[in-house]
Amino acid sequence: MELYFHWFDLLGIAVFAVSGTLAAWRKQMDGFGVIVLATVTAIGGGTLRDLILDSPVIWLTDNSYFLAIFSAAVLTILLVRNRLVIPNNTLQIADAIGLAFFVIMGTQKALDHGTSGFVAIMLGTMSGVCGGMIRDVLCREIPMVFRGELYAITCIFGGLVYVQLLGFGLAQMPAMLAGMVALLALRLAAIRWHLTIPVFGKKANDLR
Amino acid sequence: MELYFHWFDLLGIAVFAVSGTLAAWRKQMDGFGVIVLATVTAIGGGTLRDLILDSPVIWLTDNSYFLAIFSAAVLTILLVRNRLVIPNNTLQIADAIGLAFFVIMGTQKALDHGTSGFVAIMLGTMSGVCGGMIRDVLCREIPMVFRGELYAITCIFGGLVYVQLLGFGLAQMPAMLAGMVALLALRLAAIRWHLTIPVFGKKANDLR
Amino acid sequence: MELYFHWFDLLGIAVFAVSGTLAAWRKQMDGFGVIVLATVTAIGGGTLRDLILDSPVIWLTDNSYFLAIFSAAVLTILLVRNRLVIPNNTLQIADAIGLAFFVIMGTQKALDHGTSGFVAIMLGTMSGVCGGMIRDVLCREIPMVFRGELYAITCIFGGLVYVQLLGFGLAQMPAMLAGMVALLALRLAAIRWHLTIPVFGKKANDLR
Repeated sequence: MELYFHWFDLLGIAVFAVSGTLAAWRKQMDGFGVIVLATVTAIGGGTLRDLILDSPVIWLTDNSYFLAIFSAAVLTILLVRNRLVIPNNTLQIADAIGLAFFVIMGTQKALDHGTSGFVAIMLGTMSGVCGGMIRDVLCREIPMVFRGELYAITCIFGGLVYVQLLGFGLAQMPAMLAGMVALLALRLAAIRWHLTIPVFGKKANDLR
Repeated sequence: MELYFHWFDLLGIAVFAVSGTLAAWRKQMDGFGVIVLATVTAIGGGTLRDLILDSPVIWLTDNSYFLAIFSAAVLTILLVRNRLVIPNNTLQIADAIGLAFFVIMGTQKALDHGTSGFVAIMLGTMSGVCGGMIRDVLCREIPMVFRGELYAITCIFGGLVYVQLLGFGLAQMPAMLAGMVALLALRLAAIRWHLTIPVFGKKANDLR
Repeated sequence: MELYFHWFDLLGIAVFAVSGTLAAWRKQMDGFGVIVLATVTAIGGGTLRDLILDSPVIWLTDNSYFLAIFSAAVLTILLVRNRLVIPNNTLQIADAIGLAFFVIMGTQKALDHGTSGFVAIMLGTMSGVCGGMIRDVLCREIPMVFRGELYAITCIFGGLVYVQLLGFGLAQMPAMLAGMVALLALRLAAIRWHLTIPVFGKKANDLR
């Protein structure tokens, strides 16, 4: 099980790195910009969570994360250079799998540090979405996650399912799996049927 | 006294959360964006201070902060939706009270960790202004606090009064109160008479 | 030797502070904005590195950093106000010296905390470039370091030389000096002959 976890973790890392690479491509950054954006997108959320929990930052002692990031970035550059288009749907589904894993693992890590279930869900969501937020800030964009897609809400939902099931006395492993499946199902439904949450604000004006 | 402190703290948190909510409204963010902006505005400065001091982040173990933030955000949304306008003056005065409290408490916390008075004033000011800076960056704005209003200077002034009075041998409690009153008085004067500090730079050009 | 180190450190800090001050000037910020930008540019990278390594943040207990920052900022303001232009070349060379020092010292600090050579080079580079990245984000710019100049690459190169020489059994002090010289030489060559690395992305469009 543990072994599967590490592979899912690397999958999530790699998918997030692809999204960072594509963002750097859209902004015409240089090779260093590509690597930085791929890296912060992939590990930014988890790093922030670890800093706040005062827990050792995981990639300080495990190079396999960077191997996953660099492989994903180089592969993406090669594909884009050769005009091979990555199907958007494939990316979104892989991203959803990585997200499910990140959020529930992040929630679990916070609980391990003795936080309340509420704070744990918040830190789990932070693990999933903050990397992308830093990516967008470095690209001078308002974070995508604020723009009405059903993304962050699915993280909160998955974390809630997990914490509730633990509260009902379920063992850790089935509760984690259930949380991941719940998150994944809602996220895939959102992708499939373009579910959105209402955008708040001055409706008449267009976005600036 | 301690009890009053906690209530002032929650007042400051709530007022900062209102300012984050209004910023999200202006940028037409979704419900998640509102919550994130309200939260980072309210706790961003204190979190950064705690990370730098290597002190446990306070909201990890106290949910009352989030209760204050969410209540403030929901109330603000309801008011704005119903076109009830929050008087700008009321907001600014509440913000000044919250600021006075945040800055002096942050300065005290740094002193408790053994920093010099100078660094303590810097960390106190950081507690007061960094939440708003992160809010503005996430909204793709140049931080308001850099724009000539007498805001950060009042934080430095209040911290200076507090640290000086401690240096003159005053007890902690009266020194804190004096620092808060000094900060509040200067901030209210700045609001009342539109005091500014000179903006530095290429005067002839307009802002980009 | 240690004494020289401290002076080089302060030189690097001061040069980075000048670059932050000039950025604030271009954006017409107020006096507080100048100080903040000078400070985050100078100590942002090192602070982030220390947080990630869970090492005490160095400026918490050493005021000489701020003395260097404030002196550099005030001097820069005076020069600019009096229309005395700082020769761009002088600045770039001073920046290269500061950068060489920051990156190799940062790499060494990471190795001292037991990271792999790879992660150490990454953290060393982070020490050198993240201050400037935060500066650019606060100025609402896409970080300059992503824009094709041979800057970050020189950091990676210098760190690599240092770590490799250590691996070959060289003593710490000559290895550090060799790493600094290698970084400095490549950076000066990049300045002299306008070396660039290819920018990745949609070539036909212009930058947004």
